[in-house]
Amino acid sequence: MKFTAEAVWSDILAIRRQSPLIHNITNYVVMNNTANAMLAMGASPVMAHAQEEVSDIVRIANALVINIGTLSDRWVLSMQTAMKEANIKGIPIVLDPVGAGATFYRTQTVQQLLSVASPAVIRGNGSEVMAIVQTGVQTKGVDSLDSSESAIDAAHILSNKYGCAVCVSGKIDYVVMDKQVAQVENGHAMMTRVTGMGCTASALCGVFLSVNPSVFEAAAHAMIVMGIAGELAAERSDGPGSLQLHFLDSLYSLTETAIVQRMKATA
Amino acid sequence: MKFTAEAVWSDILAIRRQSPLIHNITNYVVMNNTANAMLAMGASPVMAHAQEEVSDIVRIANALVINIGTLSDRWVLSMQTAMKEANIKGIPIVLDPVGAGATFYRTQTVQQLLSVASPAVIRGNGSEVMAIVQTGVQTKGVDSLDSSESAIDAAHILSNKYGCAVCVSGKIDYVVMDKQVAQVENGHAMMTRVTGMGCTASALCGVFLSVNPSVFEAAAHAMIVMGIAGELAAERSDGPGSLQLHFLDSLYSLTETAIVQRMKATA
Amino acid sequence: MKFTAEAVWSDILAIRRQSPLIHNITNYVVMNNTANAMLAMGASPVMAHAQEEVSDIVRIANALVINIGTLSDRWVLSMQTAMKEANIKGIPIVLDPVGAGATFYRTQTVQQLLSVASPAVIRGNGSEVMAIVQTGVQTKGVDSLDSSESAIDAAHILSNKYGCAVCVSGKIDYVVMDKQVAQVENGHAMMTRVTGMGCTASALCGVFLSVNPSVFEAAAHAMIVMGIAGELAAERSDGPGSLQLHFLDSLYSLTETAIVQRMKATA
Repeated sequence: MKFTAEAVWSDILAIRRQSPLIHNITNYVVMNNTANAMLAMGASPVMAHAQEEVSDIVRIANALVINIGTLSDRWVLSMQTAMKEANIKGIPIVLDPVGAGATFYRTQTVQQLLSVASPAVIRGNGSEVMAIVQTGVQTKGVDSLDSSESAIDAAHILSNKYGCAVCVSGKIDYVVMDKQVAQVENGHAMMTRVTGMGCTASALCGVFLSVNPSVFEAAAHAMIVMGIAGELAAERSDGPGSLQLHFLDSLYSLTETAIVQRMKATA
Repeated sequence: MKFTAEAVWSDILAIRRQSPLIHNITNYVVMNNTANAMLAMGASPVMAHAQEEVSDIVRIANALVINIGTLSDRWVLSMQTAMKEANIKGIPIVLDPVGAGATFYRTQTVQQLLSVASPAVIRGNGSEVMAIVQTGVQTKGVDSLDSSESAIDAAHILSNKYGCAVCVSGKIDYVVMDKQVAQVENGHAMMTRVTGMGCTASALCGVFLSVNPSVFEAAAHAMIVMGIAGELAAERSDGPGSLQLHFLDSLYSLTETAIVQRMKATA
Repeated sequence: MKFTAEAVWSDILAIRRQSPLIHNITNYVVMNNTANAMLAMGASPVMAHAQEEVSDIVRIANALVINIGTLSDRWVLSMQTAMKEANIKGIPIVLDPVGAGATFYRTQTVQQLLSVASPAVIRGNGSEVMAIVQTGVQTKGVDSLDSSESAIDAAHILSNKYGCAVCVSGKIDYVVMDKQVAQVENGHAMMTRVTGMGCTASALCGVFLSVNPSVFEAAAHAMIVMGIAGELAAERSDGPGSLQLHFLDSLYSLTETAIVQRMKATA
């Protein structure tokens, strides 16, 4: 399997044309960035978490993005309700298990959510992906420690168990599904100094899933676009403050040429 | 009735001089932007939502801004308490019915809030304004579909029912009150690609209400200032990321000359 | 006692090298800024507030930052749990009593939190610091009114009572501990037009406490770095929008030379 700039670009055009509605139940820290990244891509984000309405929102959405970054009991209940409804309606789900492994509560919540419905994509850093599989692993907060072979092994286990694509973000992003492994080498080190870049990556998975029926391709395309927009932004930035805004500008004005010239993805 | 740059500028000077305290019960996505827009104007924002303190905050505030963007039951209770208190104390209220029509919960909540106290200003996009009047309308998430004649008709109905000004935001912003309709043609298309610009518009209504006793004029002035600051920002921006920050800079450094040269408002 | 640029720089290098994990239970408005400021410094922020996990997070953290900006009952309970755990484990606590004095609920909550555990640092503006001591003082929202002698007197009372350093932020920042008073004259007036700069200052106290065992020095170093980064940012900014991003860039790329040239701190 080979990723092509044409296929990435075709998804981007579809997003800009269709303006898919993406329902996010995500964390307080990144809501603003996530909404802005989606708007910059041409998608239409909705943030809604009340038990009274999540099912109604899911029903009109083209994808559901669940992110446990600042979880609490009532939010987790709403995540479950939304995932159940998405499952019934066949709406693709992205799960970002932020901080899995850092606390028992997070690891356990991820297991509960996964028992409600299988996501189309799980996206996390190496520590988080490993923690879901090996519940004994203690991770350090929400930042990645590792994106090694053990993380890819864990991703394969998760992918097989839930029939989903698993993205392992790091210096190299891996997308694992069935026997396939994609490697995306786009991106820039400075992106790790902006909060919520991982969360944005998960959100973009939701955006691409809403226009591309191939889950594996959608996830890889999201990683490619994240990485290229990050590179374009970092090259114009003096630090993580300016990177954050240039990143949104880059998503907004992304061209096919930039993708052709920069894309480094193999499968 | 005619809007004048002098009157807009006089309000801006009053805001900078008096630094009015604006109490916001708003959504998680935009709290930061909203606070920053108010600070850039010279106002003093307070975000507080606990049942235990909203009445105390309302009592020292010069305006109350209610925004249901990420509503949940306890927040709605606090909104009701705050509106009740504002009503008793004669503090002007702005209501932003974000996503009304998208779910039954939102439409119903707006009706409940409107039954507690009449706002001075209701500001939303066309879909939201229509949904409040015709409860059968299904809107698509939180973004506007329409700013047509039917929205203005709905605005008239709301204005008459609640004795308030109704702003209908869109390519052209309309402010409706009694038999008056103001049209504000300032603004820039790129503003729709930044999250929370509508919420900021509502917040600025609160800021202008705190210095201008004419509700109709205050609402129109807020739309004019939003639009002009947005134009100034967009002209210097490569995308919605940089627009967001230039918008704040523009609010901060707005001059009478810019208003004189750019204002496109008729009533 | 004398502050030296060398000592400030040594702390910064330690932060960049050790990447300390800072647990924040803070307000919705500033979470994103706070996380980004910590990341720009080289620290590793975690935002987590669920009763189910705060103790687990505290246990792996190097400092705990408590900020009551958008408090509500369940969040206050989690703050108490986290402070209790931090106290047991000897992890330094920063308390930011946002809006103390503005409502009875805030003033009372601060008293409750202080009865749970003594923080290493209390940081607020003059009004807030005075309100904690003289519970009858009514402050105006969350912005500072005063940074006068009475605020420093109040800081001394608090410092003696809780054995902590007390930062009083204002045009001049004061750090009070025992009989010592540090004055930091760095900073820029435009910083008051960006929301959450005070909250960021508190967060940076936590970051410096995690690498510097002298509480008085850590707090003063945090104020110095805030002020210098703010100056560097303001000089490149057209308004508070661009200041916000340049501030992050400045924290990220801060050099020893800048500190040597700009530091204005005496004790």
